[in-house]
Amino acid sequence: MSKIELNKRQEQIVEIVKENGPITGEQIAEQLHLTRATLRPDLAILTMSGYLDARPRVGYYYTGKTNTQVLTDELKKLKVKDHQSIPIVVSVNVSVYDAICTMFLEDVGTLFVVDDKSYLVGVLSRKDLLRTSIGKQELTTIPVNIIMTRMPNITVCRQEDLILDVAHVLIDKQIDALPVVKDTDQGLEVIGRITKTNMTKILVSFGQE
Amino acid sequence: MSKIELNKRQEQIVEIVKENGPITGEQIAEQLHLTRATLRPDLAILTMSGYLDARPRVGYYYTGKTNTQVLTDELKKLKVKDHQSIPIVVSVNVSVYDAICTMFLEDVGTLFVVDDKSYLVGVLSRKDLLRTSIGKQELTTIPVNIIMTRMPNITVCRQEDLILDVAHVLIDKQIDALPVVKDTDQGLEVIGRITKTNMTKILVSFGQE
Repeated sequence: MSKIELNKRQEQIVEIVKENGPITGEQIAEQLHLTRATLRPDLAILTMSGYLDARPRVGYYYTGKTNTQVLTDELKKLKVKDHQSIPIVVSVNVSVYDAICTMFLEDVGTLFVVDDKSYLVGVLSRKDLLRTSIGKQELTTIPVNIIMTRMPNITVCRQEDLILDVAHVLIDKQIDALPVVKDTDQGLEVIGRITKTNMTKILVSFGQE
Repeated sequence: MSKIELNKRQEQIVEIVKENGPITGEQIAEQLHLTRATLRPDLAILTMSGYLDARPRVGYYYTGKTNTQVLTDELKKLKVKDHQSIPIVVSVNVSVYDAICTMFLEDVGTLFVVDDKSYLVGVLSRKDLLRTSIGKQELTTIPVNIIMTRMPNITVCRQEDLILDVAHVLIDKQIDALPVVKDTDQGLEVIGRITKTNMTKILVSFGQE
């Protein structure tokens, strides 16, 4: 759907409804010194294109929607569960060296650390691992436990969360990935990961519609 | 603008135009056994909403646009130059250790390597640096030169390129960032960087319209 260019009369109608809505078709016609029948096609166009909305026994009111609003509306439909990737986890007992190897083997940028009951206890980024690896310690002897970001400093999301909200968090907190978790009585179960790569894929998919 | 729900007659018109377009309003009316006047509001709605387009002396034809097409159209307007970030570069002579320090100081995920005339010769990712740092060599003595991705294996983009095309490349080649370059007689000048973070910011900005 391309941008709808309103004609002069349609713009007048939008202005009238913006200022006086809710307002009936008859009242709009009166203000413009026209008949209700003359306005019918214009009102139909304005209603169908989303500029105005109408409620029976109430009248027309202004929705405030613009062309770019479609985009926002489409984006707001997206949920984490439809775009998440498989999480890669390591045990809290492994060494930094093993975590680095896992990162390369699995080709991911973020690892989630779980305890022996498989509940989330930490997050490891490439930068966490890089920072440690330029230190003087032996990587095979340092447990990830020492260097990981731990609760309550881990930002998580859930499957029903909106992609837009997650994108916000990734930007605001300057992180690459969030674990997607499921709440249980014992702790947070890691069931997915959502990353800036997923966000980029969403852009690409919109470009292919 | 919200999604336009076509009524039965409008759908019939779209079908007729799809199969027979370009076709005049009179011919459409004939096929539906209606008058041209009766169809006028429907044709107006279909044209203004972008389903159909009309050319004088030619008639109506089908544009093939759907609701999600708006999104694609909006995305296709975006260019690299309007969304790029500042590039962080290091000289080809610095050590891996210095490059890692620069990465942390500048808080970026990718460094671009330039020769002594400031032309692009390499790219360093966090993974390149991490891979080297778990080796047994002394990081302060290895030049980035040895470990960087070099021409012609570097994927670049230019300011006039479309964001959508860059997003595609980032996904297809599984890379986090591209250098934005300017072509000169002597080589490629690095004038920006575009990353999955920029892509995520674009999603966020659409959500705020």
